[in-house]
Amino acid sequence: MKQALFVGRFQPFHLGHLSVIKKALEVEDRLIIVIGSAEENHESANPFTAGERFQMIEATLNAEGISHDRHAIIPIRNVENFMLWTTHVDQYIPPVYKIYTGSDIVKALYKEHGKYEVKDIELVSGVSGTRIREKMLKGDDEWKQLVHKTVAGLIEKWDGVKRIRMVS
Amino acid sequence: MKQALFVGRFQPFHLGHLSVIKKALEVEDRLIIVIGSAEENHESANPFTAGERFQMIEATLNAEGISHDRHAIIPIRNVENFMLWTTHVDQYIPPVYKIYTGSDIVKALYKEHGKYEVKDIELVSGVSGTRIREKMLKGDDEWKQLVHKTVAGLIEKWDGVKRIRMVS
Amino acid sequence: MKQALFVGRFQPFHLGHLSVIKKALEVEDRLIIVIGSAEENHESANPFTAGERFQMIEATLNAEGISHDRHAIIPIRNVENFMLWTTHVDQYIPPVYKIYTGSDIVKALYKEHGKYEVKDIELVSGVSGTRIREKMLKGDDEWKQLVHKTVAGLIEKWDGVKRIRMVS
Amino acid sequence: MKQALFVGRFQPFHLGHLSVIKKALEVEDRLIIVIGSAEENHESANPFTAGERFQMIEATLNAEGISHDRHAIIPIRNVENFMLWTTHVDQYIPPVYKIYTGSDIVKALYKEHGKYEVKDIELVSGVSGTRIREKMLKGDDEWKQLVHKTVAGLIEKWDGVKRIRMVS
Amino acid sequence: MKQALFVGRFQPFHLGHLSVIKKALEVEDRLIIVIGSAEENHESANPFTAGERFQMIEATLNAEGISHDRHAIIPIRNVENFMLWTTHVDQYIPPVYKIYTGSDIVKALYKEHGKYEVKDIELVSGVSGTRIREKMLKGDDEWKQLVHKTVAGLIEKWDGVKRIRMVS
Amino acid sequence: MKQALFVGRFQPFHLGHLSVIKKALEVEDRLIIVIGSAEENHESANPFTAGERFQMIEATLNAEGISHDRHAIIPIRNVENFMLWTTHVDQYIPPVYKIYTGSDIVKALYKEHGKYEVKDIELVSGVSGTRIREKMLKGDDEWKQLVHKTVAGLIEKWDGVKRIRMVS
Repeated sequence: MKQALFVGRFQPFHLGHLSVIKKALEVEDRLIIVIGSAEENHESANPFTAGERFQMIEATLNAEGISHDRHAIIPIRNVENFMLWTTHVDQYIPPVYKIYTGSDIVKALYKEHGKYEVKDIELVSGVSGTRIREKMLKGDDEWKQLVHKTVAGLIEKWDGVKRIRMVS
Repeated sequence: MKQALFVGRFQPFHLGHLSVIKKALEVEDRLIIVIGSAEENHESANPFTAGERFQMIEATLNAEGISHDRHAIIPIRNVENFMLWTTHVDQYIPPVYKIYTGSDIVKALYKEHGKYEVKDIELVSGVSGTRIREKMLKGDDEWKQLVHKTVAGLIEKWDGVKRIRMVS
Repeated sequence: MKQALFVGRFQPFHLGHLSVIKKALEVEDRLIIVIGSAEENHESANPFTAGERFQMIEATLNAEGISHDRHAIIPIRNVENFMLWTTHVDQYIPPVYKIYTGSDIVKALYKEHGKYEVKDIELVSGVSGTRIREKMLKGDDEWKQLVHKTVAGLIEKWDGVKRIRMVS
Repeated sequence: MKQALFVGRFQPFHLGHLSVIKKALEVEDRLIIVIGSAEENHESANPFTAGERFQMIEATLNAEGISHDRHAIIPIRNVENFMLWTTHVDQYIPPVYKIYTGSDIVKALYKEHGKYEVKDIELVSGVSGTRIREKMLKGDDEWKQLVHKTVAGLIEKWDGVKRIRMVS
Repeated sequence: MKQALFVGRFQPFHLGHLSVIKKALEVEDRLIIVIGSAEENHESANPFTAGERFQMIEATLNAEGISHDRHAIIPIRNVENFMLWTTHVDQYIPPVYKIYTGSDIVKALYKEHGKYEVKDIELVSGVSGTRIREKMLKGDDEWKQLVHKTVAGLIEKWDGVKRIRMVS
Repeated sequence: MKQALFVGRFQPFHLGHLSVIKKALEVEDRLIIVIGSAEENHESANPFTAGERFQMIEATLNAEGISHDRHAIIPIRNVENFMLWTTHVDQYIPPVYKIYTGSDIVKALYKEHGKYEVKDIELVSGVSGTRIREKMLKGDDEWKQLVHKTVAGLIEKWDGVKRIRMVS
């Protein structure tokens, strides 16, 4: 079974992330989705807990009919020392052969690591966690168009926009 | 959906753990299986990495025909400060209403926590991680009868018995 | 006895803080004053040690005739993981039923925590730690009018203005 | 004002500790009582939280008529690196000139530190935290004679004996 | 033997650092060169690992004919708590009597520490780690004139400019 | 230049360690001597600071006429997570091709790491840090015959035997 790695912070999980997962699953047997910076929460750049992000991803993939057999979601805390980062992740996951990432630093680290194929992801233009959080902060409801409706529902249930404003 | 929590260290995942999972799934819709002390590895009491333990659990449940829809496996590092422990776990997991555990300290902490129902698990007599690791150390192959054959296969593939001897 | 919590960084302890304490003590039997970010010191935003801040608070309350019976001062280090923050504080303090705070993030965290009444404090206009440190940095002696004369005396004794300049 | 330091873990606060405090206050103007290993709790050797230990000490001193003016109680977490220990404590406390301690390692560290007078305390024969916790574990109610009745009352209120058994 | 301390981050080791070392060795018997923030790497302000910085310093001093007898290079991780910083460093090094540093915060900390003579270093105008990293980022090859040719060679061998761009 | 790694805790540096270094230097161009568990000190199993251990090694090699050109001494703190250990060490050291060690766990970790040749060291019978510390504790002066006379002199200068007794 060919398993690949997809690393993100998912603050929140948005349509760009979903698009990467769908495209990757055309090629890979299974995707190990790592929730990075898992212990950060209630901060302006990291408003949601790892458990909330877990729910966003899982509920969206369920809604999209992507089977649990095709993915696993593993939250991993950050390590400040970047040279340790790839080994830190390796200790938490089943074997993978390729990594999908949009982060330059993650790409650089895995290229030095040398063990996995590094696959640059195509971002959906105009969709990013930063932009979504900015819209939430400004009270611009357009953020809901950048996430799956399942995610929008969860964030409303958790009063997530208010939380982002309080912690910013 | 009724989700329950099952916390263990799974060093290694054995038939006692499997029995708890099977019984719990007769009652619960889904089990969140937390791999505790996730960052400990290559120690006499914690020989396997979180990623290896993830594989042991997943491969066994697959072999037993337990669907991925019925469980999620989440590795969580230890926190030395026990008063923070239950909140530490809460931040990593989707909502649960009950906890299955065989550990007295975990039981005590969740009783003080007060949020979940605490369910004492019935251990299978004579099956424990400690006993399995002792047999491995002594070169007694009987340890293979205390784990699922899938787990025995993985441990042999990883040369796990040799590792336990080297780190003890 | 009705005990309430007042959390601040007190860099330095100023007239706004003193005013909160005096008003709170009109209502509460006793105030547990938590010195937050206790392990930060010799930084531009956190110039004073927890021990120095302890002295500033205690000496000012003594000078103002507020009895030791009416308050306790407890320094607590920060935890980066905000979801753990309120439980982290709880482990250090005697039981309280209400929290006084001017920090939006602290307010947000205690509202989720749900155990205590959250009381928004009225800040004294123009008095803040940030403003005081800025004046010190610029050599504007007007900072002395924003703190109690006891605090001004201690900061001069410690050569605190020079320290702030060296670490900024 | 002559302030001295008294460092202990106070698991629990017992008659030996109280005796040290009373004798010290015959000589010193004020005692800074440091609760060491403040972040340890729910362990067999450290069953009580810093906040609970704070209450034990304060309630006992109140009951004994020792004024709040004569002492301050400051919880401080442990640092594993002993060479940093005395400086770690210094950052949390107001100035002291002498230290009372019964711990050989604390004595050794302060002698190297060189800044304070080190005063060896006379322990009350047969009274120690270890002995009290052992009696609690064995169900021997005699532990109540080794602590102040205020402390015995608090421990019963918290169901402390049961907790010690669960975490041991 | 008179040993002095020289603390820097050496990101990278440049001609200003070399000049300090040469001048110090006119006066001192031996220099203990501490690589600060040793665990930071692959960040825009800290691109190189401690091991790489060790090599830059050692290879340059070798090339300049400065004997190994005249210096030792000791990497030390940062501690966020500045009051502990000087004691933290002391535990890692042989005895010194003087410190050379260009950092205001390090100077302030050692002045409070009181144990060593503090020697302000004369920086070479226009040579700083910040400026070198900025030139690397902009693709301005002039950075090579601010470091020893040995260092320029190592950075090229490691593809260091590309790394700085990827992590910035 | 062929550089090899020698990892030990050196509590204290003894004749067995010296023998390994001498034999290794018959074969290697240069030895990188890593002082492990560098941040542990003033404990029964780790009485000496990294700086003291640095001095023991350096003074002994000087006394034995082993040039500074043939070795470098690098203190490295422990990481509890063993899977990160070899990468943690790699970030601190110049490139090496072989590792000398007497520790089973270190051997196991480097065998998994796969990057270096692992060389088992021949211990000198009856010489070990544990045995030396035991003799010190018992007041048996024979410990002086298990270390170089330079080391014995340093330990006496530091009153090291008394320290070991106080912290044990």
